[in-house]
Order: sequence, then structure tokens, then C-alpha cells
Amino acid sequence: MKFSIVLSTQPAQFQAATFKGDLESNMARIASYGYAGVELAIRDPSLVNLKQLADLTTKFDLKVPAIGTGQAWGEEGLSFTDPDPKVRRAAITRIKDHIPLAEEFNAIIIIGLIRGVVKKGIETSQAMTWLVDALKECCNAASVHGVRLALEPINHYETTLINTTEQGLELVEEVGEGNFGLLLDTFHMNIEESVMETAIRSGGERIFHFHVADSNRWHPGAGHLDFKQLLKSLTSIGYEGWVSGEFLPLPDVDTAAQQGLAYLKIATL
Amino acid sequence: MKFSIVLSTQPAQFQAATFKGDLESNMARIASYGYAGVELAIRDPSLVNLKQLADLTTKFDLKVPAIGTGQAWGEEGLSFTDPDPKVRRAAITRIKDHIPLAEEFNAIIIIGLIRGVVKKGIETSQAMTWLVDALKECCNAASVHGVRLALEPINHYETTLINTTEQGLELVEEVGEGNFGLLLDTFHMNIEESVMETAIRSGGERIFHFHVADSNRWHPGAGHLDFKQLLKSLTSIGYEGWVSGEFLPLPDVDTAAQQGLAYLKIATL
Repeated sequence: MKFSIVLSTQPAQFQAATFKGDLESNMARIASYGYAGVELAIRDPSLVNLKQLADLTTKFDLKVPAIGTGQAWGEEGLSFTDPDPKVRRAAITRIKDHIPLAEEFNAIIIIGLIRGVVKKGIETSQAMTWLVDALKECCNAASVHGVRLALEPINHYETTLINTTEQGLELVEEVGEGNFGLLLDTFHMNIEESVMETAIRSGGERIFHFHVADSNRWHPGAGHLDFKQLLKSLTSIGYEGWVSGEFLPLPDVDTAAQQGLAYLKIATL
Repeated sequence: MKFSIVLSTQPAQFQAATFKGDLESNMARIASYGYAGVELAIRDPSLVNLKQLADLTTKFDLKVPAIGTGQAWGEEGLSFTDPDPKVRRAAITRIKDHIPLAEEFNAIIIIGLIRGVVKKGIETSQAMTWLVDALKECCNAASVHGVRLALEPINHYETTLINTTEQGLELVEEVGEGNFGLLLDTFHMNIEESVMETAIRSGGERIFHFHVADSNRWHPGAGHLDFKQLLKSLTSIGYEGWVSGEFLPLPDVDTAAQQGLAYLKIATL
């Protein structure tokens, strides 16, 4: 099983961006702890030095399995389902802007909170239409470059759109693009899924990426989720993607990163 | 073990008020399903006909273990920690207004969302001071009537004040009144507690009341919580209070009430 961990390429408000700040020292520690990959959380790819990133990942022999895009929502309010067509267009443009970087690293583009929420006065059906249209456009632009997109079901406290694997799979069906799938996250699944292992099995080959955090959003091992069973379910469906740590940097980022990976490795035995 | 279920005495926005509306038909069904008690969610006790309530609970042989007060926050914005002293005073008065009803039924007064959240521009330490002062005042007024208050740790998406049992116990210590304790809720514990059974054991005799909902806030049995272990932990600390169902009325209120109780009864075997 291949393990990575989230690193924000700039200071970020999002609390569960495990590592933040200086790229070189963070990547050095991530690699030294035994992670094989680093998932990059990027608000705006135009602010990222692609050459520097490529050099650093080569230096530390780290893959980049996925790119998180949620900060464009959290810090700029961009979303696929905003009532303002200019905001929707900016969100679509932003996701397309990630394609060159994703192609360079063979990374999946994550559609998390940038999908937005159903805003007041907007019908859910209208928001879903905007969402599907935006995803189709982005998937089409990405497929030319062999890039895949993965939408993350997120618990209902954070979004009103797509909370469960079942809803995610219906969306995948509706979007109908081969390069569109899901990212499942154990923290959100704990709140939303009746049986988490069943959700994983139902996701099957449409699971493009996988996030781990324990029930309290701390590193695996700090809460009460059964990672042995969860990873076993992933193996049982022939999952060949990455297992990526997106958890709170508590008690501190280095302890969380090390203890989380140690726990996951034991869980795979 | 004594089981009850939440009934809102008036139409309510709160989704997890399992039963809502007509008192007589709801109490008849609650009793017929085998519950021994009904937890009343009351926004404003001045709108409740105490005589009618007493007659109905006698008719259906139902106890009233606790009174929920959160609707005064959800629908009127009353809270112990509002920056406006008039709002804080109204919240304290409202809780005191519940005392006669609580005394009549030997019911616990629940302090849920009426504690409020830390509002913008307010220091957490200031909010905590307001909270402690309000609780002391309410506890003193209630103790004369032999009435107890129980504060519910609530997950961090719903409030910024008191999310865990540990924080709740610190507050109990600070308030320092013998008639003040905690209400633990399995839905919130699943999100906040590292190990739920450990939290229950740490709560010990300060657990005055207990709410059950499964991980997805549906009735017990619909999610992935281990109620056998949870109820065993309650028994192990000598808990003699009620186990009260506060869950979503899904797929419909009657199915949820019946399946939830059946599942809990099996879990106690």
C-alpha cells in the first residue's frame, strides 16, 4: 500500500492540511518519516513554481498522487454552484489551471469543497445541474492530458452537496466521464456511512483516491476507527491507488505524521 | 435499562427531535412501542399546558426523564454566551422557567445549544465566564426544587463551547454544584471522543442523562456504533439514569422508534 500525506504549498486556513509552509523542509521530513508521496494542497497553481516542486519531489523521491483544490473555496469563495455565473466560471477556470501540474506529476485533481453548497434561494436540482456541467467541462479538458478528477463526499456539516458514497456514485453515473471518480475519506465516512466497509466495496473501481483521518480527525490510531478492516476492504476491491493522510497536525505535525504512518503500517499486516 | 425518546411539544425545526406535533397520538404510539419515558423538547414552558401533559403521561404511563431546551437557541437565539446581556438574561430566565415543569416530572433540565457559541470578537475565556455564571445561577435556583441540570457536550460543528466529555467534566468542576452534571450523546461522542467507552467511564456518576443515536444520527442499528459495548460501559459505572433516543425520524418516525428500541434491547442482552 502506498502512503502519502497532505502538504499545503502556502500558509492555509484549512486545519486538516497536515503540513504547511516551507516546501523543502516539509518534504524532507515527510520523506524521512517513510511516506512515498506528498499530496499537494494548492489554492492557485499560478502561485506555484512548478520547476521548484519537480526538483524537490525528485530530490526527496516523493510522488504527488493528488492535488487538493479546496482552498480556492475556503479563501476565495470559488465554487461550481455559486448563483453568480462569474464565480462558477472562475471555479471551472481554476480547476482547469491545475491540469498542467496534475499532468506533470500524474496526479489526480481533487474536487472537494470547491463544488460549493446549495446557497439560499437556489434549488438543489439547479445546483446539481451546475455541478454536473462544471464537472463535465473540467473532465473533458483534463482527459486530453490523461488527467483524472476525483470528487470527495464530505460530511453534511461542511456541504449540502454529495455527502455519501452512494450520492457520489450517482453523480459519477450522471457525469459519465471515464476520468471522473471518487475520493473517499474515513473521517467523513464515519459520520455519513451506515457501514464504512460496505461503502468502500460499493465504490469499487470508481475510488480514485483515499484519505485517512481517525474519527476525531486526528491521525490514524488516535480515534476509534478500525483501520485494519478499512484497509482490508480497500485491498479486497483491488484498490491500487494511494492512501493519503489528511488529518489535524496534533499534538504536533511531526508526531501526527509519524504515529499515523506507523499505525497504518501495522493495520496492513 | 430505562428507555425514552424525544418528543417536541410543538412543531420544531430541529431535525433530530424524533417525534413532533400532536401530544396525545404521539405519546400513545411511544408507549405502545414499549418506551417507558418521553423526553420533552420544549422551546418555551409558558406555551405548555402542564395539566394536559401530566394527564397524558399518566394516561400512557410514561415518565419524563428530561426536558430539552435547545429550541430557545435554534428558534429565538437565546444563549448563555451572547455578547448582549439582555439575551443572556433571557436565556437564564428561560432555563429557570423550566424548573416547575422539571420538578413536577422529576425531570433533568438539559443544557444543550442554549449555552451558545463563542461569537465573533468575544474571547473564549469571556464566554466561559458567562457560561459558568449562568450555570451557577440556574443550578442554585433549581436545587431549591430538587431539580438537576445536565450539560451536553456537542460536536464541534454545532458549537465551539464544550465538545468533549473531558471539557464537560472540567466545566462541572468549575461550576461546582451538586445538581450539575453531563448528558452524553453517542452521535456527538462518535465525532469527538477518542474512545467512547473510556469517555463514559470517565464521566462516571456525573453522567445524569444519556442520548442515543447511531453514527449517521439515524436510530441505533442504522449506523456502525457498537451499542452493546456502549451500554455495557454505562452499566459498568452503575448508571441508573435513562437512555433516551434522539435521532432522525428516518425512514419514518414510527419505524425509527420501533427499530431503535428493538436494537437497544438486543444490545443489552
